[in-house]
Formats: sequence, C-alpha cells, structure tokens
Amino acid sequence: MPRAFASDWRDRCRSDRPDPFPMHALKRVERPTTRIEDALVQRKDERESGFNRAGRGDLGERLQREFTRFVPKHPLSGALVTMTGVLGHFVDARAGSSEDPSARAGGMPPLRPAAEHKAPGTEDPAAMARHIKETAYFLRADAVGICELPPYAVYTHGKLDGQPIDLAHKYAIGILVDQDWRTASGFNGHDWISNAMSFVSYSNSAFIACVLAEYIRRLGYPARAHHARNYQVAVPPILLWAGLGEMCRIGDIVLHPFLGPRFKAAVVTTDLPISIDKPIDFGLQDFCTKCKKCAKACPSKAIPDGGKETYNGYERWCADAERCTGMRVGNQNGSGCGTCVKVCPWSKPFTPFHRAVNWTMRNIPAARRLAIWGDDLLGYDKPNPDAKWWLDLEEVDGKLQVPGKSGKRD
Amino acid sequence: MPRAFASDWRDRCRSDRPDPFPMHALKRVERPTTRIEDALVQRKDERESGFNRAGRGDLGERLQREFTRFVPKHPLSGALVTMTGVLGHFVDARAGSSEDPSARAGGMPPLRPAAEHKAPGTEDPAAMARHIKETAYFLRADAVGICELPPYAVYTHGKLDGQPIDLAHKYAIGILVDQDWRTASGFNGHDWISNAMSFVSYSNSAFIACVLAEYIRRLGYPARAHHARNYQVAVPPILLWAGLGEMCRIGDIVLHPFLGPRFKAAVVTTDLPISIDKPIDFGLQDFCTKCKKCAKACPSKAIPDGGKETYNGYERWCADAERCTGMRVGNQNGSGCGTCVKVCPWSKPFTPFHRAVNWTMRNIPAARRLAIWGDDLLGYDKPNPDAKWWLDLEEVDGKLQVPGKSGKRD
Repeated sequence: MPRAFASDWRDRCRSDRPDPFPMHALKRVERPTTRIEDALVQRKDERESGFNRAGRGDLGERLQREFTRFVPKHPLSGALVTMTGVLGHFVDARAGSSEDPSARAGGMPPLRPAAEHKAPGTEDPAAMARHIKETAYFLRADAVGICELPPYAVYTHGKLDGQPIDLAHKYAIGILVDQDWRTASGFNGHDWISNAMSFVSYSNSAFIACVLAEYIRRLGYPARAHHARNYQVAVPPILLWAGLGEMCRIGDIVLHPFLGPRFKAAVVTTDLPISIDKPIDFGLQDFCTKCKKCAKACPSKAIPDGGKETYNGYERWCADAERCTGMRVGNQNGSGCGTCVKVCPWSKPFTPFHRAVNWTMRNIPAARRLAIWGDDLLGYDKPNPDAKWWLDLEEVDGKLQVPGKSGKRD
Repeated sequence: MPRAFASDWRDRCRSDRPDPFPMHALKRVERPTTRIEDALVQRKDERESGFNRAGRGDLGERLQREFTRFVPKHPLSGALVTMTGVLGHFVDARAGSSEDPSARAGGMPPLRPAAEHKAPGTEDPAAMARHIKETAYFLRADAVGICELPPYAVYTHGKLDGQPIDLAHKYAIGILVDQDWRTASGFNGHDWISNAMSFVSYSNSAFIACVLAEYIRRLGYPARAHHARNYQVAVPPILLWAGLGEMCRIGDIVLHPFLGPRFKAAVVTTDLPISIDKPIDFGLQDFCTKCKKCAKACPSKAIPDGGKETYNGYERWCADAERCTGMRVGNQNGSGCGTCVKVCPWSKPFTPFHRAVNWTMRNIPAARRLAIWGDDLLGYDKPNPDAKWWLDLEEVDGKLQVPGKSGKRD
C-alpha cells in the first residue's frame, strides 16, 4: 500500500511519537511480561535450529529432501529467497569490502568499515534513538524498537560457516516488516503463498537492515545487519526487550500489538550510543490464556493449548519445534505454513474499526472473550476468496505444475 | 508507513481495481496527452545523459570532481546508493548466474534464466496483467502500469559497458515507489536529504523489479529488471504509455496523479503475454500551463516558464538538462536537488482532504487556479521544520562534518 495513504504521518512529526503505530499509548514495563531468569538462559547454536536440523537429516530423509525445495518450489518465494540470499553477503564491511577478494572479484560496490571519526551531532543517545527510528521508517520499516543486546541473544555458532560467534555490540535495533494484510486475508494459512509472505518481509527487513548498518558505520560506529540469510543473533529476545511485542502462545514468537504475528524481522547490532525502549504490556499473557485459536488451528498440533512451562530460563508457552518445522518444510499442499498468523485475532488492518477493537482487547480484560468470539463470528480465520491473487504452482523436477490440491481449501 | 494503515485494501479485492490508488477513476486515452511523432523519436545513448556527461568532464572540471561525491557525500544517500549498486548485478540471469564466473567467485546465489517450460495458468494476458500488478503491490510497489515497450525507449548504448543494446522484449512494467511524503514536507527541495529521497525510491523499486523479473523468468518467460544502477531503457516514455502519469512542465518527467513527481521508478521488460494499460489524461497539460511553480522555484532556472517545444519528436516543456544536472551534482548547500518535487501541488499525502482537492484539480479546470493559490496560501512549498528528522552532514576528505550552511533555509 502506498505510504502516502497513511493518515497518521502528522504523529511522526511529534518528538515523543516517532512511530507510525501508536506505540506511545502502550503501557511500558521494566521487564518483559514473560518471566526470564537471565542467568539461566543459554546462548543457542544456530546449527540446532529446526530448519537446520531438517536440512542435515535429523528429522528424517523426507524432510531433508524437502528442505532443499520447500521455499523455491513456488516461483515467487523462490525469487524472493534468491534476492534475500544476495543480501546475506552485505551485512557488514567484511563481506563485500574491498579487502574481500571474493567480493572484489564479483565487482560489488564495497561496504565501508566504521568511519575513523565519529560524525558530529551523534553524541546524544536520546536524539540518536529518535533519529535511527525515523531513518528506519524513512527506509520503509513498519515498526522499530531498540534494546541493549542481551548476551544470550547471540548465537554460539553460525549455521553458514559453523564458526564460533563473537559479537560484542552493545545495542540492537529491531526492524519489523508486515507480511501484507490483504494477502493474509486471502490465504488459508498453509497454501502456496505462505513462504512468499514470509520472504517478502524477510527480504524487505533485510534490505532496510543492510542500509541502516552501512549508514551507522558511515557515522563512525560499528554496526552489523542480521537477517534471514545471515544471522548472528536470535531475534525474539531482541524484539521482546525492544518493546515490539510480547511472547505469545505460538511459542518462540513475539506478537506485535498492531501487526499480531504477521511480520518478519531483521536486526542491526551496533555500538552507536542510543537510548533504549522498555518492554510493553498490552495484556497478551491473559489474552493468549483465553484465546487458544492458534493451538486449535495448527495443522501439526505443534502449539500447546495448556499452560506455560519453563524452558531455557523462559517461562512461556512451548511449541513443538520439530512438528512446526515438519509442517513448514514438509507441507505437501502448500509452501510453508503460517496458520497461526492466519487465525490470530491480533492480525488485522489498521482501520478505525479494528483500532477500536484493538484498544478494547488491550484495555478491557473482560471484553477479550467477546472479541475472540466476534473474530470467529466474522470469519477472520477463513480465507477470503476475493483476496486470493497468487498462482498455485509447484516446481516438480524442474517444471512448474498446478499442484494436485490446488484451489481446495481444507 | 505501515501498509496495514491503508483503509483502501478492500478495493484491491475487486477484479477491476487492482491498484491501491483510484486509477480506475481516471480518464483513459488512446495516446499520451503529449504529442509524440513516433517515427521521429530517436533512441538515446545513455552515455549522453546529463549525469554521464558531468562524470566524464563535459560540464567542467568542478562538476567532474563533484560527480564522484555528490551522492555519497551524505552518509544516508551513500549507504543507499551502495546497496542500489549491489542490485545492479542482479537484473537478469546473465549477471549473477552460475555461468558468470565473477558472480560464482562472489558466492552469490544464481539468478535463473527463463524456465524451459511455461507455467500453466499464465496464458491469459488480461489475467496475467492483473496478476503481475498484484504481485508488484505485494512486493510493496506504490503504483504499477504496463505498456508495450516503445522501441525508442531502448537505449542505443549502456553507460556501464558502452556496448550496443539489443533488447527485443515486447512489454514493459513500470514500478513506482514514493519518496516519502513526510520527508518531502520537511525538506526545502535541495538540502542534505534530497539524494537519499531519490535513492530510497530507486533502491526499493530496484529490489521489487529484480524480484519480479526473477519471478517471471521462473514462470517461463524472459524478463529483465532495469533500475538506477543498470538501465537498458529510458523510463519516462514507458511510464507515459503505461498510464502512470502525464509529461509535465518539469521536463523529462512523468507526473503521477496521486504522487505528483515524488517518486522514482524501475522497470521490468518481458515477453510474458500481458494486457496493456492505456495512457491517462487528468488535465495536467492545462494545469502545468497555469501553475509554473516549479519554473519559479527551480534554483538553477532549468525549467521553462513558457510554452512547449518539439524535441526529439515530443511536443513538451523542455528543461535545460545541463543546468539541472549542474545544480544536482554541484549543489554546495545540500546533496542533490528536488525543488520541483517539493513545490509541485500534486505531491500530497493521500488523506481525505487532499483526495478531495485532487479530484477538483483533475475534474474542474476552472478551479485549478484556486487550487494553486490555496497551495501557496497553506505554505506547502515551505519546509515544515517539525518534519525535519535527518542530520545535515557532509563528507569532506573522508570525514563527516556539519556543512557551513546547515540549518539555514534559503
């Protein structure tokens, strides 16, 4: 949608309201609403992620085979993941710098290392926090938040090269990009557009992060972009501490108060001195206790319908990563899966009606069951056939064909 | 601005209205409102563009020197042009393919040549036109239009390698990205954010074009992206024939009815059979005859305040390219220049008030002078200080400094 549509651009001229969404209206808290025993949280090894385990065969031969094709088997997600892969080479000045012979051979324009001198006017952390947010919004981000980089958010090893990761940046900037409301209203959660929705957000947040990191380095401060094709950090704890959402029933997912789970994120880590945001509390822990729509709808039964458990220092709903990965990689009737995104009552367009409902869900606990009931009644968990614009296509043996179940909604 | 803000997403579910802007409401015409003697239009040599002439010294030593720094002298436009440069290597399957040794050396994911087999369901040109537009909007384009590729829009030679260009694709898809209304309301037209505004649109439209071309190739049809860092076509005639705007007083510029001149564009050329749009007539030839704001405001006096002339087969207002280039490249009080974008009454946000004024300007010729007068009265040609979010910075001898005239509005 054209950015010129936004009627709220005037808010962005107010020094206390840099965000297009009314983040200023949310309750801020000292610690995330998910209990975290900081001392108990272990850094993760990216090689142990569900996708990586599927790729190396831990989840069986079928998923290992499917892993190489589950994104490119649809031509649009294939095009998007290819271009996201390009951006994996431009996260900092090492890759792509003139000192990098492979990049030099490719004739790529060099990224710059952090400038030797700090730019004048970059000394005030509060002013720089506002400036970095405004810059990210100018670069077409949908939501931005800042936190100190939690040490446990840094992976121990990266999956690309298997090397130990040493990332000592002090701050992290979370950058969210919407997966497109209209497409979300048209899909059933696990059909042929699902991976493309993920990668339109992955690729656009990646591009913003690459530009923003290069900008910060030019201002004289180290900075690195982290995105779907080159992470050194786990994203959820960063979004949580940066006030971009609360942990939700879906599991390892942070839910934004105005986008729901309908986004993907990239991150910039940096040493630029910058004020941080506080975590937010919009009542989601109570809401998710009552709702359970994602648990009911999950095609792989990966989302619990019971209570929270403590895992790796977090007291939260724990999804079954193997089942979730198995569904997304192995889905035979679509490419990927975002059924939890589809059915979540928080994924809505930002219209006056939905803003009013959103306010009610955030502020009136007693009205939450009514909102959940109304969501069912209005059929938001169903695909809207008028909003289906994509082609159901599957690449099999190098040739695109109409998949067997095309058009059938289950 | 978040795309979820758009209240008009429902229109995009109507088969006759794929566009977020109400393009369906515009008068369509058989030929552009600018008279074109097709047989007289000569193909251009990209090496003879104003910027290229400045770069090789035709416009003097000072501009030749400034040419290497006029974009990267500000750190944000510098970061943006660097990442746009990356995308210049990914316009089609030749650059970046596994057959390309330089790309292979860089470890880049290969782009694909057109698939051997055409995808099923891609045979209906009208359906594919709608589908390609919806895909581009999903990829976050702000406006999209389709035309047959006018042979005279193809450059004779490219500036990158100086080789003769042989591009025989039948169709061209124009992709517009907004330069950000809020930033436009804050700048004076030729200060330090001007080039960043250009390149946020260049880079984002480039990314969309690269993904869209790769998608079309996967569907089984040749396609090439054309963008600010790798063109084989001149953009204005394509936008004109694709119904994305009319030629305006600014000169070699197509003005969109809802964005004004506040955009940059990329193009995908292809042989995918696809229905074309018709040119539009929203009264701009009369409006520009009356308005003349851009001519009055142009710091380099490059825009004529008189009538049209015939040049290269087009009867249009002819700007002085050398003066315009000299201002943009040589600007000592900013980076680049978009003063004509700043003062144009058609560059507005898409709010109910401005939609109403826009309708009046399009449909009631007698009200145009009133609209022009009101635009002055409301001060839209002045920078709104509350909307200035960027840092005034200039790189001199490898070090960022606050430019001498920083903050002074002239």
